[in-house]
Amino acid sequence: MKKLINEPADVVDEMLEGMVAAHDLRRVDGTEAVVRSDAPVEGKVGLVSGGGSGHEPTHAGYIGDGMLDGAAAGEVFTSPTADQVSELIQACDGGEGVFCVVKNYEGDVMNFETAIEMAEMEADTEVEHVVVNDDVAVEDSLYTSGRRGVCGTIFVHKIAGAMAQRGEDLAEIKRVAEKATENVGTMGMALTSCVTPEKGEPTFDLGEDEIELGIGIHGEPGTERTELMSVDEITDHLAEAVLEDLELETGTEVATIVNGMGGTPLMELYVVNRRLQSVLDDRGLETWDAWVGDYMTSLDMMGCSITVLELDDELMELLAAPAETPGLTVPE
Amino acid sequence: MKKLINEPADVVDEMLEGMVAAHDLRRVDGTEAVVRSDAPVEGKVGLVSGGGSGHEPTHAGYIGDGMLDGAAAGEVFTSPTADQVSELIQACDGGEGVFCVVKNYEGDVMNFETAIEMAEMEADTEVEHVVVNDDVAVEDSLYTSGRRGVCGTIFVHKIAGAMAQRGEDLAEIKRVAEKATENVGTMGMALTSCVTPEKGEPTFDLGEDEIELGIGIHGEPGTERTELMSVDEITDHLAEAVLEDLELETGTEVATIVNGMGGTPLMELYVVNRRLQSVLDDRGLETWDAWVGDYMTSLDMMGCSITVLELDDELMELLAAPAETPGLTVPE
Repeated sequence: MKKLINEPADVVDEMLEGMVAAHDLRRVDGTEAVVRSDAPVEGKVGLVSGGGSGHEPTHAGYIGDGMLDGAAAGEVFTSPTADQVSELIQACDGGEGVFCVVKNYEGDVMNFETAIEMAEMEADTEVEHVVVNDDVAVEDSLYTSGRRGVCGTIFVHKIAGAMAQRGEDLAEIKRVAEKATENVGTMGMALTSCVTPEKGEPTFDLGEDEIELGIGIHGEPGTERTELMSVDEITDHLAEAVLEDLELETGTEVATIVNGMGGTPLMELYVVNRRLQSVLDDRGLETWDAWVGDYMTSLDMMGCSITVLELDDELMELLAAPAETPGLTVPE
Repeated sequence: MKKLINEPADVVDEMLEGMVAAHDLRRVDGTEAVVRSDAPVEGKVGLVSGGGSGHEPTHAGYIGDGMLDGAAAGEVFTSPTADQVSELIQACDGGEGVFCVVKNYEGDVMNFETAIEMAEMEADTEVEHVVVNDDVAVEDSLYTSGRRGVCGTIFVHKIAGAMAQRGEDLAEIKRVAEKATENVGTMGMALTSCVTPEKGEPTFDLGEDEIELGIGIHGEPGTERTELMSVDEITDHLAEAVLEDLELETGTEVATIVNGMGGTPLMELYVVNRRLQSVLDDRGLETWDAWVGDYMTSLDMMGCSITVLELDDELMELLAAPAETPGLTVPE
């Protein structure tokens, strides 16, 4: 294994120190949660998320005006503890309550639900949450009952963040976050396995000419292994699976993400986007915004995912609202 | 070789189509150059750059308000032709002339110089340029006489772009771009080789426990091969080489980039940043801004580079000025 690390056991802690040294963030004392340095912000709902590390910039990279107030980082590919999430929630409550965006993994859901009860009991914090399950590849998987939460979560961060920023209350944020979750679908694929710092070798084996379609962001099994195909064939496969799930009418406006898994050059992601936009155009769909980059990664995995979000006027306005975070900036 | 591509020969063309589909860009007819869709912008100097492809988001990813007006993309790791650069320059001349930011590689310098003569002769365009040579690792290398131009170029894009945006003339832009070039140093390292689409196998061989210090962004040889070290040791080595070159006084304010080479997880870049900021602090230097991410990549190479820019009030103001591009956004 070749990685830019010291001891594998220290990588999350040292990563968070490096984030705090670069951005306007601070650690919540004694935890591996980080918050905007001026948290809690009064007069708005606090928006938080979290999950296992190794998916950067997810989630702490989306902390800032117009998106998250804080994020809890578990160990690599491991849910943050309920204690840490509860501390995070309390650190982000500026008096209007806290909204949590949770990816659908059993550990994350259980620990966030426990943390929410703890924060309600210990600090009388009002908390609501949404569970994002945008991965159309498989029902039930390693770590998951139901569909996995993957890159569509970043659209939910952006949309719920814009709602919180403009002063909407918990119930309104929940309504819109649930709409975004219902409207979004994602499917991913891998050319290579990721290598976790602790294990130091590939999480799964893929042959020299093999790829895995429908892969999860921790290397969980997908829908099928096939021979290496052209990027156009791969894109068609992913896009068709997502579009079949969303069942969009001709003329629907969408936002898209071509997301890199961490080890794939940006050059290749743009080649995926070329084909994706052509597929959408052929289906009579209108792309209103197209994101291309590493939004939710899986360490050094080579591969990509495609996300499509069905828009309406409300979601468009929220996506276009200003945001200023390390991972995503939307100017006014 | 596993890549998300169709035919290797088509990858640059298809990448550019994917960029144009995602961002507010258009192709210059019949070339592999792209410009902002409203180019040429009247009333300001046009700012352009270019070079071999495979370094994305460099350069086309920095097109937009406050940075570049256009960029020429050569084939992978190959300079764009003088014809294409000349077309680019002419497409970006809104009447105030064009300023070119060129990385110091023999092909790039020769083709930009020829292109500048062509544009001056064919279209009477007034053109100035700067050659960036920030790589402190080696004097002379494969493709280069003198020092190579690497990630410090992005600081020059930002600073010259802010000058152009506020309406400064060619001579003033040249003065400040040269100051930024003199004030910046970079050094990189690789854990693994990159793989070009055409060749389909590693550009150079590195043993299982070997790394290369001082690597170039095309896999050109560096200063030494050593056994794999901890990230703190690697960071110390790179930072010391850059700081020895810059010879900064205690109390100097700097901006830094921890740049990923394309295949390295963002998690690891933050671990590098943690150590870098600690080294700078120990030396009595003041970090005014710290960037962490993939700014100038080398396809799928695993590794990183460290850039340090010595600031003064003028450079600080220009770095802080608004910019809106796919690869870097600075809000007002």
